[in-house]
Order: sequence, then structure tokens, then C-alpha cells
Amino acid sequence: MDELILKGEKAKKASYKLANLSSLIKDDALKKMSELLIKEKAKILEANAIDVQNAVDRGIKGALIDRLTLNEKRIAAMAEGLLQIAALPDPVGEVVSMWKRPNGLQIGQKRVPIGVVGMIYEARPNVTVDAAGLCIKSGNAVILRGGSEAINSNKAIISVIDTALAEAGMPEGTVQLIEDTSRETVARMMKLNKYIDVLIPRGGEGLINSVVQNSTVPVIQTGTGNCHVYVDGDADLDMAERIIVNAKTSRPGVCNAAETMLVDEAVAQEFLPKVLKTLQGLNVEIRGCERTRAIYSDCLPAAEEDWDKEYLDYILAVKVVGGIDEAIDHINRHGTKHSEAIVTTNYNKAQRFLNEIDAAAVYVNASTRFTDGGEFGFGAEIGISNQKLHARGPVGLKELTTIKYIIYGEGQIR
Amino acid sequence: MDELILKGEKAKKASYKLANLSSLIKDDALKKMSELLIKEKAKILEANAIDVQNAVDRGIKGALIDRLTLNEKRIAAMAEGLLQIAALPDPVGEVVSMWKRPNGLQIGQKRVPIGVVGMIYEARPNVTVDAAGLCIKSGNAVILRGGSEAINSNKAIISVIDTALAEAGMPEGTVQLIEDTSRETVARMMKLNKYIDVLIPRGGEGLINSVVQNSTVPVIQTGTGNCHVYVDGDADLDMAERIIVNAKTSRPGVCNAAETMLVDEAVAQEFLPKVLKTLQGLNVEIRGCERTRAIYSDCLPAAEEDWDKEYLDYILAVKVVGGIDEAIDHINRHGTKHSEAIVTTNYNKAQRFLNEIDAAAVYVNASTRFTDGGEFGFGAEIGISNQKLHARGPVGLKELTTIKYIIYGEGQIR
Repeated sequence: MDELILKGEKAKKASYKLANLSSLIKDDALKKMSELLIKEKAKILEANAIDVQNAVDRGIKGALIDRLTLNEKRIAAMAEGLLQIAALPDPVGEVVSMWKRPNGLQIGQKRVPIGVVGMIYEARPNVTVDAAGLCIKSGNAVILRGGSEAINSNKAIISVIDTALAEAGMPEGTVQLIEDTSRETVARMMKLNKYIDVLIPRGGEGLINSVVQNSTVPVIQTGTGNCHVYVDGDADLDMAERIIVNAKTSRPGVCNAAETMLVDEAVAQEFLPKVLKTLQGLNVEIRGCERTRAIYSDCLPAAEEDWDKEYLDYILAVKVVGGIDEAIDHINRHGTKHSEAIVTTNYNKAQRFLNEIDAAAVYVNASTRFTDGGEFGFGAEIGISNQKLHARGPVGLKELTTIKYIIYGEGQIR
Repeated sequence: MDELILKGEKAKKASYKLANLSSLIKDDALKKMSELLIKEKAKILEANAIDVQNAVDRGIKGALIDRLTLNEKRIAAMAEGLLQIAALPDPVGEVVSMWKRPNGLQIGQKRVPIGVVGMIYEARPNVTVDAAGLCIKSGNAVILRGGSEAINSNKAIISVIDTALAEAGMPEGTVQLIEDTSRETVARMMKLNKYIDVLIPRGGEGLINSVVQNSTVPVIQTGTGNCHVYVDGDADLDMAERIIVNAKTSRPGVCNAAETMLVDEAVAQEFLPKVLKTLQGLNVEIRGCERTRAIYSDCLPAAEEDWDKEYLDYILAVKVVGGIDEAIDHINRHGTKHSEAIVTTNYNKAQRFLNEIDAAAVYVNASTRFTDGGEFGFGAEIGISNQKLHARGPVGLKELTTIKYIIYGEGQIR
């Protein structure tokens, strides 16, 4: 039998056991994984060095090498992450609500694991540990398919996880790695509805689009963030500057970073020269609309495509708008429904922005950078969903569960 | 521009307006639709007669003709259904939870419409009205694609809905029918991610599988129910008989009807002859396993495939099992994760069944037939989901919404 079917069957079988495992055992497994990662770090680093060397040999460089590379600090962070997950409350088993019907039936909604999660990701070996940790805690079995660049690292990590899970008495098949990293196998994984309940792609836009386009298994789309900060005519302009500087420059490579700033024409003349100078001083390239350039000529012109770009870099598109109507219209047209912010002191405009913007997270007077499982208080996340079904925003432990109706009867018939 | 893109754009535009429409206007629209359906029933029946005649001319008969046919009573039921939806509470706008973070950010989860719902269904014209009603109430725009058999009926109904919605001041594009019923157009509709947020197929297994297999738009899978009743060794056998009779015969053609009965070997000898005779007296064909036939020979033998069949008919597969372990294993292997019931007086076995069965609705001592939006107290439903993501079980108004995070800040940066 081939690897995919074999591992699919094992995962499905494990998922039934995992669904009713006590938090004590799951947390013990997470702690053992954490300890063993530290203890076996030499073995993991050795395997990782092979991956990195292979990548270098194939002419890969820059950010990809950085994402692929492990070191003691990164392994320590992975181990620490597992302890944090162990310390979180177990989402499984909570009866979210229960009610009684006139016929006496008592109907409850109980939180249960989804079942088998499939993860498809790229070069970052830490995803292997993060995803395993979150799936174990939420009672799901997980089938991991990392990028071929990281295969040696992933195999070394999985062998450590295997040992820890066996020691903790976890079901066989709880965490499995697909070792065949061929395109054909990943394509088949996307159609494995019989064994996989949900697929979560993590990586660049190309990977995510490919999974969305080709998967028949339901997908949680973690995604691109073309996020906006709208500086309203009634904004506190000092606050606006702090927020756009933070949203753009605190970590430009992540999905909740701002990519476009919209500025109300009422304050553009006063606000733009100062803020754009500050941003340029922080190495941000400004791409302005015509009205922006009429006020502040020392910047590049924005092309129509700029409004749709997720730069993930020190680049900001800037547009002067006629007011909140144009701002909302622009964002709903060009945004990716991720994180959007207004800076204003005006109650009505704050309410309108919150109500009318279609996005996972809508902010008044705060940086878009807060869209994050940790910052929201979820403790950990497997990604940030910008789809609307099932999970929207940070995908934490609760979002890795579903509900089942439990019904207590006394012989009722219909 | 072609019909699909044009209607997609209109629906998307309408969805932004609908998201913030007051319940008063939506309920008024539903009431006007209800009134006008009755007032214009002659026109609708006339159009329906053409569809029925066309179907008959093409040699279609039986159940399909019945599903296609409207009459005064059915139109009255559709109109009444809309009034019931109007009377339900509006799910939109509820802030499900809100909390404050240590940095002072106030984060709330607010219930909002999904956006644009696409419905793909077959010959039943009443789905046109039901789906429109549920989508309007939940603040969603809807694009309807009914079967070609019902096109004249659907056009007549849509023209009535259009008039009612215009009178009520609803946004243009709230409810639209795809008039081109070609296969090519429905295939393109399944890839219309830019405009459609969720697809809900309603109909036979073939239709649903085709949408699941081909759609890149997220799908809420309403589905097949291969439901089981397990009669435990500790069951009250009179109750067990009432429950299986109800689950099998009260309406065999629906998804929550039982298809297989599992009987604990401890009571098989006592229970089977009586209950199988009763069922046969109600015209139920029995397909028994070998052990069943050893006890009660007056029935057909069950083939291996019978355990996986959704008969939707007066047929019941019957299997003697060694106890609760085998019952749970059989159900998790052959069930479609819809509705499953145990009949028992034993506390431990009731708990095990509730915990270990993987299905949308798990019953102790009640008929599987209760899995229904009305019976659960949701008031109305657009179908019953047996997928795990987003909505599981009856899909009512709440399940037609999603959440968005609304975040109130005071200048917080990260």
C-alpha cells in the first residue's frame, strides 16, 4: 500500500482515540516533546545542516535559506512554544450550549476535534513542531507535508516527536510526516477526503492558491494581507503617525503589516509631508497617488496595481481619498479581508468603519499588527484565516475543533 | 458581459448594503414576498404547469414530477415559511463575546453575514423561496441556480420576489436567478471565488459530489445520511421498537431516517423476531446479516454493500453485533457522520456512544429523525451539513453567518 493511504488510515484510526484522550496525557506528550527536542538538538541541527547545504548547492539564497535554517535559539523557541501550548486550556469537551426542547429532548453542542488535519507547508521546519503541538492539544491527528528543502530536518524532528509520543502513550499515527515530497503525492493528498478532514496550507501565495484551486478536502485558507490604515480627517495625527509607522515598519514581512495608507484630503496637506519623511527615514519606499505627489513630490508614483499589492517589504502605497466613503470603498475593493484600521476621533466614522469594512479584523485607533493569536489572547495559532467559513482571523486551538450535537432522550419519537 | 459575472458583481455590491440593513426592513421584505406569492399564485402555477408538461413530454415521471409540481397548498406553505423566518430573531450584529487585553485593546467577535451565498439545486421550486428567505434574513445576497426542469417556475417566482424586494426597498441584486441552466455555466459558478463566498448544493448525491469535487468556492456539504440505530443489550426493548419504527418508517425518503439497525447479540434472540415482524407489517424490506437470518429467516440476506447504502426507502439493513465496541466501530466505519442513535438504560454505554461516535448528531434513547432545524429549535434550515467545518448538523440562520473581529483601541501599537 502506498505511503499516503497507509498514513491516512493510521491517522483516521488515531483520531478516534485522540478525541477522547485526557488533557493530562496530551499535555504530558507536549512536555516530553519539548524536553526531547532540546536533548536531541545536535541530531536535528546535523540534519538541518544537510538541508541548508543542499539548498546552497542548488543556488538558493537569502530569505529562503533563513527560513530553512535552524540553530540552538530556534530549537529552544520551538521547545518553549510546546510548553506554552501545554499550559493552555484544553478546548475539547466543552459543552458550548445546551437546551431543552418542549418534547423533553436535551440538545447540547459539544466541542470535539476536527479529526485529521493535513498541513502543507514550505521550507520552515518549525512549522512541523508548531503544527504537531497545536493538533495534539486540540485532539487532532495530523499529516504533515513539508517542503522538499527541509526533508532531512523534518525527518529528524519527527523521529524525536515519535519517541516522545510513544513514551507518553499517545496513539500511533497521531503525528505523521509524508516523506515522499513529490508534486504528485501532494496533489493526491489534496483529494484524500476519505482520511483528511481539513487542509491548512502555510506558505506563500502560490502554495495557498494551488491548495485552494486543487483541493477537494475543505481548506482553511491562511492568507495574504493587503492591509490598510485610513487616516481620517478627524484623526489625532500624532497617533496616526505612530500607528502607520508601527503597522508598516515593525515587521514588514508578515501578513498583518500595512501595505497602503489612505489619507483623508482634509488632513493630507498637514499630515503627509511629516509622516512620509518619517517613513522614508525608516527606509520605507513611498509610492504615492497623484494627489499625494502634488503635496509631497519626493516619492515614486503609484501605479493602479499598487493598490492590490502585498509588498511584505519596506514599501508603502499612499492615496489621498475624499473621505470615509471613498476609504471604505477602496478597502472593500482592494483589500484581502485581513486587517484594516481607521484612525479617527469621530464616533460616527469609527462605527461606520467597523460596520462596513469586510475583513477578519477591523481596528479603530490601533495598529493592524495585532491580528495574531498571541495578541488576541488565544495563546498560539496555526495561521490567520482570511476566508469566511469556519475560522476567520487567528486560527487557534478552538478553531481546530468543530462541534457535535449530543442529544439526551427518554424514548422520544417524531 | 456575461450573466454570471454581471450577477456576481451585483450580488457582491448588494451584500455590502445587506450586511448593515435593519431587521425591520428585512422582515418587511419577507412579509411582502409572502403576500405577493399568494397574490400571484396563478402566474406561478401557470409557469409551473409548463415545466411539468415539459418534463412529462421528456418521459420524466414519479418522484421527480412530484418534486417539481406546485399547487395552491405548496405555495401557501412557501408563503407561510417566509412568515416564520420573519418571526425569527435576526442573527446579525450579535457580539458573541468581547474581552479586554492587558494593553487595553477591547476585542469583540461580531456575527456578520457571510456575504454572497450560491445555491445549486435541482427540480424543487420551493428551494428558490426557502433559500431566498433564509439568505435575506441572515443578511446575505444569494445567487440561485435551480435545475433546468424548473426554470419557468423559478423565473415566475423570482419575478414575484423582485417586485416584493423593490417595494420593501431592498438592495438590487439581493436575490438573483441564473437563467442559463447549462452545465458550462454551473461549472463556472463553482469557480466564482471572486463573487461567491460559499456554495450550498441541495439535491441528490450526484449533485453534491459534483460540487464538492469541482468547486473552488468553499462548500457547505449537505448530505447523505446512512443513519444507524443501535439496540444495546441493556435497552428497554419496547422503547427500542418504537424508536426504530419511527426512525425507519415515519419518512423514509429523508436524510435523518435510519438505514441500518444494529442489535446487541445479548438481546437479538428476544428482540429481532418481534421487531422485524412489526417492520415488515409496515412494508419494510429487511436485509439481515447471517446471524439475523439464523434468528429470523423470513428476510433477505444483506450483502457487504448494504452497510454503506442510504436506501431512502422502505428497506432496513439489520446486523447482530457483539456489543457496543463492535457497534461503535461499525458506525464510524460505515456511517456518513449524520445522525446515530443508541437505545440503552446503561449509563456507561450511553456516555461511550456519545463520546466515541463521530457524527453531527448523536442520540441516546431518541429517534434519529429529530436532526432538523425546526426540531432543534432553530426555526428553519437550509439543509443538514455532515461536513465538519463551519456548520455541522442543521444549517439555520446562525450557520449562514460568520464572525468578524472588531477592535477598539486608543492608539495601541505593537
